[in-house]
Amino acid sequence: MEDKTEKKYRPDWHPENAGDEFAVRVVKGSEPGKPEIIKPEIKRRHYEIDDYAEGVLRNDRTILARTITLIESNSSKHQAIAEEVLKRILPFTGKSLRIGITGVPGAGKSTLIEALGLYLIKNGHKVAVLAVDPSSSVTKGSILGDKTRMEKLSREQNCFIRPSPSSGTLGGVTKKSRETILVCEAAGFDVILIETVGVGQSEITVRSMVDFFLLVMIAGAGDELQGIKKGVIEIADALLVNKADGENKKKAEIARAEYSNALHYLQPATPGWKSLAHTCSAVTGEGIPEIWEMINKFKEITSESGFFEMRRKQQSLQWTFDMIEEELKDSFYKHPKIIKILPEIKEKLLQEKILPTTAADELLNLFKE
Amino acid sequence: MEDKTEKKYRPDWHPENAGDEFAVRVVKGSEPGKPEIIKPEIKRRHYEIDDYAEGVLRNDRTILARTITLIESNSSKHQAIAEEVLKRILPFTGKSLRIGITGVPGAGKSTLIEALGLYLIKNGHKVAVLAVDPSSSVTKGSILGDKTRMEKLSREQNCFIRPSPSSGTLGGVTKKSRETILVCEAAGFDVILIETVGVGQSEITVRSMVDFFLLVMIAGAGDELQGIKKGVIEIADALLVNKADGENKKKAEIARAEYSNALHYLQPATPGWKSLAHTCSAVTGEGIPEIWEMINKFKEITSESGFFEMRRKQQSLQWTFDMIEEELKDSFYKHPKIIKILPEIKEKLLQEKILPTTAADELLNLFKE
Repeated sequence: MEDKTEKKYRPDWHPENAGDEFAVRVVKGSEPGKPEIIKPEIKRRHYEIDDYAEGVLRNDRTILARTITLIESNSSKHQAIAEEVLKRILPFTGKSLRIGITGVPGAGKSTLIEALGLYLIKNGHKVAVLAVDPSSSVTKGSILGDKTRMEKLSREQNCFIRPSPSSGTLGGVTKKSRETILVCEAAGFDVILIETVGVGQSEITVRSMVDFFLLVMIAGAGDELQGIKKGVIEIADALLVNKADGENKKKAEIARAEYSNALHYLQPATPGWKSLAHTCSAVTGEGIPEIWEMINKFKEITSESGFFEMRRKQQSLQWTFDMIEEELKDSFYKHPKIIKILPEIKEKLLQEKILPTTAADELLNLFKE
Repeated sequence: MEDKTEKKYRPDWHPENAGDEFAVRVVKGSEPGKPEIIKPEIKRRHYEIDDYAEGVLRNDRTILARTITLIESNSSKHQAIAEEVLKRILPFTGKSLRIGITGVPGAGKSTLIEALGLYLIKNGHKVAVLAVDPSSSVTKGSILGDKTRMEKLSREQNCFIRPSPSSGTLGGVTKKSRETILVCEAAGFDVILIETVGVGQSEITVRSMVDFFLLVMIAGAGDELQGIKKGVIEIADALLVNKADGENKKKAEIARAEYSNALHYLQPATPGWKSLAHTCSAVTGEGIPEIWEMINKFKEITSESGFFEMRRKQQSLQWTFDMIEEELKDSFYKHPKIIKILPEIKEKLLQEKILPTTAADELLNLFKE
């Protein structure tokens, strides 16, 4: 969708298919002989709830981005508006395939996402790429970084790239990511690629919000999985050995066989679906169409068995209870009395001067007072 | 330690080394010509806190068993006494090796525990065998079952076998098991074998209360691990292929090699320790001394690195916070208002008529009112 008004003011030499990130604009000049005062636009346009909801539904990129910013805001005023907007768009959500993508640094996640995204867009899909990083206070993703990494993809009109939300509690970031998925779905994106940026808990978090979970690997010395957090292989619906090109192709094939062997020992991540290892090359494009074929097969099988729908419902319930439990814990651990006494109790526990049972009782009594 | 009073009243024909489960007693008769009224003992002796604590410390089996019963009781009066007893014995706890043992049904866990237990006792150790079954409301362990399964071991004076606590919440059962470990340690048992009886969560629960975690397997069709819950291999400090005897020996060796290969792909369960697969036979006794040797090596290495002590401290803190968080959740989910409205909210969530965020807010507001 293109903004005609915007286009009019672009210089003639703008790159073909330049996306909204192409910020150079020709400023409307004054008429000859009639000097005009150009007021710098210092105030962002004010939107009402309806503006947000309608803007998202007609895939207005500016409003889409601002809605997500609203969701990510920590201000309670913004959050209240965001919740109202989400309520309006709720009937238009859920109609995408949500795909989680994780992998060790250096596995070529970004190039793979770019290759897959471009392939999908070529085949008529609308693709949103989101990043989830629950540990984001340390390793913040940056929009510049993401756009640079996925340069070609970011120029596509049918693509929307959004970096990880800024720091917050694990639950907070998760909540934001989940709501961002809903907003992108309401805006008409039918494939949502969710990349894990962080390490540790993030894979589990992403698994809890996607339909299909992909683990990207590379061929190496046979100890590849050592870098992967325990349990990540077990939650993957497919392992993908990337960089299977040139001299690396043979090595990738050996690694694929090894991973297949490892998968053999594990329960499938999704009932009724056999998680397998595959090779691909984001550079040559080999194996990319097969990924999409596999994911479609997955959707077909799990939809037939009813698991697809059931998992989504479970995720929705789980999300609710996760939020509640996080809030309950917060109210305890952030209670001034608990904050004050906790170091002392911890010390006693570490020195084995007090029973855990006694410690728990003391803290709970203090909290309930 | 033998109770002399008890022994006096045993019949001459009692089996050698009969344990306390050998219940036949010679009843003190009346003197000739002087008929005596024998009052049936209908009331158990009443113990004070000091009696319990002292009884446990001098390894009085009757008091030990009754203290554990007290710990397992759901009555708040009993729990208060239990906590006092635990406080007294706390300085005498912690001096054992806590070993968790799990495995698929049919792997021969019980015979292995018996073989290992007998070996340890022969080498001067005092062994307590406990069972943990967090799912015990369904698959209750029974003392008869356990004693029957470990017949020889149960006859040893330096052994104490206690079945899984009766049903309760997961956290409740865990709490009881942890406290039972402490009581057994105070009673002088220097090796505690904790068998998981349940399935699912129980392995993780047991891992959180032991120093060393052993996974017992058997050789089969190559798909052995399919029956094992995801992630169990990853928390094991050693895999043991049992029943490596007779015709099965070769198959067991092949399985061992396969498991070793699988372990190769995983991070070690304990930093600084390489989890390996081994074979053994509980029937021939082959490989049993090597298990103990390995566990001692483990203790040596992890004690030197400081991880042994650190894990215990972490477990103690974790236990405290687990209890607190369970209590917080309980107070929410058992709140009358929440119980009343939850089915309705769940239904709305499943029908996607409400956002998880909204559902969580509504429930929390109701709870805090």
